[in-house]
Amino acid sequence: MTEHELIRELAEKNTTKIVMLVADGLGGLPLEPGGKTELETASTPNLDRLAGRGTSGLSLPVLPGITPGSGPGHLGLFGYDPLTFKIGRGALEATGIGFELGPDDVAARGNFCTLDSAGLISDRRAGRIPSEESFQVVEKLQAVKIPGVETFVKPVKEHRFVVVFRGPGLDGRVADTDPQAVGVAPLDPQPLDPAARKTADIAREFVKQARGIIGGEPKANGMVLRGFAAKPALPTYEELYGLRAAAIAVYPMYKGLARLVGMTLVGKPQSLADQIAELERCWNDYDFFFLHFKYTDSTGEDGAFAQKVKRIEELDAALPRIEKLGPDVLIVTGDHSTPSKLQSHSWHPVPTLLVADTCRFDGLERFSERDCLRGGLGQFPAKHLMLLAMAHAKRFGKYGA
Amino acid sequence: MTEHELIRELAEKNTTKIVMLVADGLGGLPLEPGGKTELETASTPNLDRLAGRGTSGLSLPVLPGITPGSGPGHLGLFGYDPLTFKIGRGALEATGIGFELGPDDVAARGNFCTLDSAGLISDRRAGRIPSEESFQVVEKLQAVKIPGVETFVKPVKEHRFVVVFRGPGLDGRVADTDPQAVGVAPLDPQPLDPAARKTADIAREFVKQARGIIGGEPKANGMVLRGFAAKPALPTYEELYGLRAAAIAVYPMYKGLARLVGMTLVGKPQSLADQIAELERCWNDYDFFFLHFKYTDSTGEDGAFAQKVKRIEELDAALPRIEKLGPDVLIVTGDHSTPSKLQSHSWHPVPTLLVADTCRFDGLERFSERDCLRGGLGQFPAKHLMLLAMAHAKRFGKYGA
Repeated sequence: MTEHELIRELAEKNTTKIVMLVADGLGGLPLEPGGKTELETASTPNLDRLAGRGTSGLSLPVLPGITPGSGPGHLGLFGYDPLTFKIGRGALEATGIGFELGPDDVAARGNFCTLDSAGLISDRRAGRIPSEESFQVVEKLQAVKIPGVETFVKPVKEHRFVVVFRGPGLDGRVADTDPQAVGVAPLDPQPLDPAARKTADIAREFVKQARGIIGGEPKANGMVLRGFAAKPALPTYEELYGLRAAAIAVYPMYKGLARLVGMTLVGKPQSLADQIAELERCWNDYDFFFLHFKYTDSTGEDGAFAQKVKRIEELDAALPRIEKLGPDVLIVTGDHSTPSKLQSHSWHPVPTLLVADTCRFDGLERFSERDCLRGGLGQFPAKHLMLLAMAHAKRFGKYGA
Repeated sequence: MTEHELIRELAEKNTTKIVMLVADGLGGLPLEPGGKTELETASTPNLDRLAGRGTSGLSLPVLPGITPGSGPGHLGLFGYDPLTFKIGRGALEATGIGFELGPDDVAARGNFCTLDSAGLISDRRAGRIPSEESFQVVEKLQAVKIPGVETFVKPVKEHRFVVVFRGPGLDGRVADTDPQAVGVAPLDPQPLDPAARKTADIAREFVKQARGIIGGEPKANGMVLRGFAAKPALPTYEELYGLRAAAIAVYPMYKGLARLVGMTLVGKPQSLADQIAELERCWNDYDFFFLHFKYTDSTGEDGAFAQKVKRIEELDAALPRIEKLGPDVLIVTGDHSTPSKLQSHSWHPVPTLLVADTCRFDGLERFSERDCLRGGLGQFPAKHLMLLAMAHAKRFGKYGA
């Protein structure tokens, strides 16, 4: 019996509310050996008080030592094993710009490049074309028409864009056309499985028409396509947990990830204050609330230790308004660590706090990496966090008699 | 290689003795935030002394957040993954009343119901028929004779009974006949797999004959059958571990679970003192001893915090007599938590203690939930406890050269 089969068997309806507050990249590292992490440096009276009431621990997003991207990081928190459920690159890129993939879609990442007169790649980033220019090239590509499929071309940033083909019988198993080198021509789209022949033909036709349209561009006169992928087959929150789930996020990537598991996007918040206002507004309409806070990750990526500390304090200050709603289960966690010292995502376990009336107390009075290490949740796979959320929300029946 | 393949490969004979003392529902919760659990409240000088000699930790019966019934809870402790090895409802019900299932048996739970003159269910519990009355109805059903199979009908309690068919070629994949509603007729037993056609026919014949016999009863004039199941295919303790195992239990359910893994039932103890007397008596005849103590669960289920504390103290007081026998490995654990606060089984990790001369000491001086959290066993899946028991009993060879 798989974990998801178990969840489906045990899930029960209830009127309880679960809030999962994801501080992206929450975990950190000290700048100096023996020093304090960002979270340990921050003044977090509310998190500390909640740590006293709840149970803390460290979540492992994928496996020890594995640094996840945002996709696997969130899938784990949502209860989907990131090694079983994979979001193809094209699907993730489309999701990241807020494009809602349908069941008949195959998405690919596109990179504009510069081709020389012989059709060989001379610049793999199209002369570092700025977004304003590339967006106009993308606009021209709207003219591509391929019989039998709908084609969507969407800008991302600089030389990057997304193409989505929508139609019956498409299949993501098409090889990248990026030769990963200059001085050679883009590859022809080849099916990696006989079932993807039609999709490869469509991609070939797309590239051919596109060359006709943008062949005269000074920088972006060619393209390579990578990471062909269909929408991942993920059971929804409703199917899996019986939860009506709301996502309250500012950035398209996280809205997209939430949509992939069937959450409803609520409002158009631009700030944490907006997000909490939305939470208050829709409190009676949902059972589960995913709030995403981006800035603990972006400050970490910037190597801005002091700014990350400030962002953690901003998050801490927002907690009383959430608590006032009386969630039955309140979770504060991150999708991965982003230590300012590394200026990147990392594999370090993520401080996690679960507060509910059925918590067994672990004697902690602080929420931090070094405290979580002694917490009652121990070190646990992130994919098990939703099991605990469901249990404390009294939404699971007993397994076996 | 599965864990069981590994166990079979490494298991070696020895003269060492392992005692596993299962305090059912041992783990608890404080009544008030920050307060003490039942185990933390109890005075347990012997357990505390043993915690100083051994290694402690918290066992997870199935997975974080999953509350097990007695079946999965004990399977885990015995080293059988409760998600891989499942005991069907009918088989567990038969086991629970002490009926020893054989390899040719299919068992189902029966519920008497009241049918109206049109044959539709008017009362799903047969007018809450008392056990004295329903036992007489069960007695009448002994007259059912089905060619080619032996039929056993056994009373459970009130409207509940168990029916077991014994014969060649039976298969448990038969659908429940309970329509889960009143005003409709019981369903016809239908095979869920072609291999179960014969069993469904037998069940149909049973219901038909039964109707003829009990049709005139005032309350229990009909029945529904649920949870058809064969005896689960579990390797025995002898096959898996090479252990001659004795079960010393008071209640039928736990005797039954022990029989399912091939343990020998020893004596007919009625109390913990009886159980220890049996242990002393059969000490030389077995390698492994499973002692089951029910009352830490039943007091928890009753919400009787103070009584659970007393029962823990009773258990503690019995330990010196067990120690005097000189077990090479002494384990004290539970099959799940049953916090008085919740008056039910729960998902909380279970305090576990293993004492052997080969323990690495973890510096604990108390046996309690909060101490176990800092213990040397960490938080571990219950199914791994037997691996440690075998290792400390020096009954495992080395894996690989």
